[in-house]
Amino acid sequence: MALDRETLQELDRADALSAFHGRFALPQGVIYLDGNSLGALPVGSAERAAQVITEEWGQGLIRSWNSAGWFELPQRLGNKLGQLLGAHEGETVVTDTTSLNLFKALASALRTQRADAPGRRVIITERDNFPTDIYIAQGLSDLINAMREETGIDYEVLLIDSEAELLQALNEHTAVLSLSHVNYRTGAMWDMQSITAAAHDAGALMIWDLAHAAGAVPVDLNRADADYAVGCTYKYLNGGPGAPAFIWVHARHHARFWQPLAGWWSHAEPFAMAENYAPADDIRRFMCGTQPITSMAMVENGLDISLEAGLDALRRASLEFTDLFIELVETQCADFGLELITPRDHAQRGSHVSFRHAHGYEIMAALIDRGVIGDYREPEVLRFGITPLYLSRTDVYDAVQILRDVLHTGVWQREEYRVRNAVT
Amino acid sequence: MALDRETLQELDRADALSAFHGRFALPQGVIYLDGNSLGALPVGSAERAAQVITEEWGQGLIRSWNSAGWFELPQRLGNKLGQLLGAHEGETVVTDTTSLNLFKALASALRTQRADAPGRRVIITERDNFPTDIYIAQGLSDLINAMREETGIDYEVLLIDSEAELLQALNEHTAVLSLSHVNYRTGAMWDMQSITAAAHDAGALMIWDLAHAAGAVPVDLNRADADYAVGCTYKYLNGGPGAPAFIWVHARHHARFWQPLAGWWSHAEPFAMAENYAPADDIRRFMCGTQPITSMAMVENGLDISLEAGLDALRRASLEFTDLFIELVETQCADFGLELITPRDHAQRGSHVSFRHAHGYEIMAALIDRGVIGDYREPEVLRFGITPLYLSRTDVYDAVQILRDVLHTGVWQREEYRVRNAVT
Repeated sequence: MALDRETLQELDRADALSAFHGRFALPQGVIYLDGNSLGALPVGSAERAAQVITEEWGQGLIRSWNSAGWFELPQRLGNKLGQLLGAHEGETVVTDTTSLNLFKALASALRTQRADAPGRRVIITERDNFPTDIYIAQGLSDLINAMREETGIDYEVLLIDSEAELLQALNEHTAVLSLSHVNYRTGAMWDMQSITAAAHDAGALMIWDLAHAAGAVPVDLNRADADYAVGCTYKYLNGGPGAPAFIWVHARHHARFWQPLAGWWSHAEPFAMAENYAPADDIRRFMCGTQPITSMAMVENGLDISLEAGLDALRRASLEFTDLFIELVETQCADFGLELITPRDHAQRGSHVSFRHAHGYEIMAALIDRGVIGDYREPEVLRFGITPLYLSRTDVYDAVQILRDVLHTGVWQREEYRVRNAVT
Repeated sequence: MALDRETLQELDRADALSAFHGRFALPQGVIYLDGNSLGALPVGSAERAAQVITEEWGQGLIRSWNSAGWFELPQRLGNKLGQLLGAHEGETVVTDTTSLNLFKALASALRTQRADAPGRRVIITERDNFPTDIYIAQGLSDLINAMREETGIDYEVLLIDSEAELLQALNEHTAVLSLSHVNYRTGAMWDMQSITAAAHDAGALMIWDLAHAAGAVPVDLNRADADYAVGCTYKYLNGGPGAPAFIWVHARHHARFWQPLAGWWSHAEPFAMAENYAPADDIRRFMCGTQPITSMAMVENGLDISLEAGLDALRRASLEFTDLFIELVETQCADFGLELITPRDHAQRGSHVSFRHAHGYEIMAALIDRGVIGDYREPEVLRFGITPLYLSRTDVYDAVQILRDVLHTGVWQREEYRVRNAVT
């Protein structure tokens, strides 16, 4: 394939997904390669928020819980999102944050194993998992251990570094396996089907964090027979900064045990104002308290666009564009010490590409200064998110030209690019 | 005091708080007496949201975590809100939901008592507390009990019905006392100072839920020497539907034990991406995951208005208006079976007034149909929230005339007013 700009432009023009680019309001002069961290603003989301605020809140006031459907919103959006996850109706709810939803899933899973297989006290996760996934497991284990009398039979979080290590670690002590489908740093993707089967074969329950997968790669939770899944809506689903997250729970776990974040929204009859907790027997059991309606309402617009484009088309483009990005970087930026850490195998790749470089921070700062917005993750990783909903082959091409320029001129060595922000 | 409409209008005209009424966008033909459930829309909040969405998200994209101050928002708003609570700088954070923040406070308190006084396993709360406060305590206890080997030494939630019963129940088994400062149904208010002292005298830690107090009554958490407090921003603080809640933690508890919702935002160095949890030594320890920025940003406008008006002025007006409402109902709606369940003693009253009536639901439905928006709570309770930021004495007067009309004509007996909504 000829990688000149004109050829790529022609391919872009012929691509049905190009029609979606106009559905996003991106700033002039920016090539946005950070949709894996915060998705772009879809056209219509600001208008939807204005409607929620001015009409539903301002005019409808408290009545809007009924008349504007606020009360049903977490489940209605959950069912819409579930279409991208291989979920059945009633298995998904949009609520809270990914961290909190993971806590619910882990606690529910440990509670279930406690009843079915009380000797299982190990949560296995990946050392390179997104940190909050590790911390939440450690926080839950710490609570359980601290509140018990016994010593020496603690719950524990075991960190594995590879698939081989994982398959060896799964045994009769494993309560839960909790993994991110797509790795936040490297973009590496686990095989959901075979890993879930391996967990089940070992008698463990399986939790998937889909933060970097939902809206980016096809997911089929029921086909994989997973137990729980969580994820966010503000990356590939373009829901807006900090938009509420989601939790999916296989129907077999809906009615068994309480999840401990037992707020009134998880009650069988929240408005009966009963004095004892009685959880709903369905996915509502995994809700907790009142949700931020304005932020949540905007999730729908992003979801609708993803559903309209279709995950198969998005995945096909994502693989082509990530291939293109890798090839262009490797041919045009050779000799500058960039090391690809994203798998070349399509079956193992999510929708972002990462390179390691000793001066990754400064190079990324210089790139952002030139309108190519990716991000940096410790240690030494430059991340580039590929989001075909609002990116073209030409964008990918242009971004690499600017990267080449930054590396070739050494402009990244300027003092100003060494200043670290609070959030990087 | 003469209670004719003209006199009240004159008093309104002379009232400095009347100047704030124009700061809210209320619908025509509505007297809004439900600010204790969802506060009104302040002028400027829609514009702030539009700025967050169009400029900060749309144009700034991921850069806005730094450049628009998103990362600091929970703490910055917490410090602002803390001024209404008697908080010191750095003790309050706006984050998550009230239910979740209560879970953090309870878990942290139980963890602390476990170290200091391991025999204390009772959480005392009120049978008439807002249900989620009871459920969260029951959910946490259930988790701890279920994950232990021992039997017969369970954690338990004890429900009390009166102050006398409370003072008798506080003993060497009490780990935590968790109360709502202002009762959601009756509007009754606990004496924060003496109840906190009683809890401490018994060796218990004290948690206050300020959902119906923050922005409604003066609160001084440090003067009361409370341990934890939680509450919401969407009632008297006018933050918007489901706006993020808050948690206040006395500095003596910041650095002792993990709270189990140990998400990355509570880590000492969230962006170091460390593989082990190491909590921040300050109020950040009580955060968890990424917050809904659009909904959160709108909290500031409401807070600013409350700070500008001042809680002393708001409290003075609230007591006068609730007195007025009670007097008008009792003189003009006598013989219709309305029973006041809100304390007449100012020291025991929050900022809403509740009456019990066997047909409370239908009467409230008929009132709402006539533009007087209060709400109904099981069993048989009509609630009327008094919010002097956007209510006048004349509004109170007019609302009672409409209530009288509804009762006098018996129009509430129409079939249409018996239909129950999902949310009441």
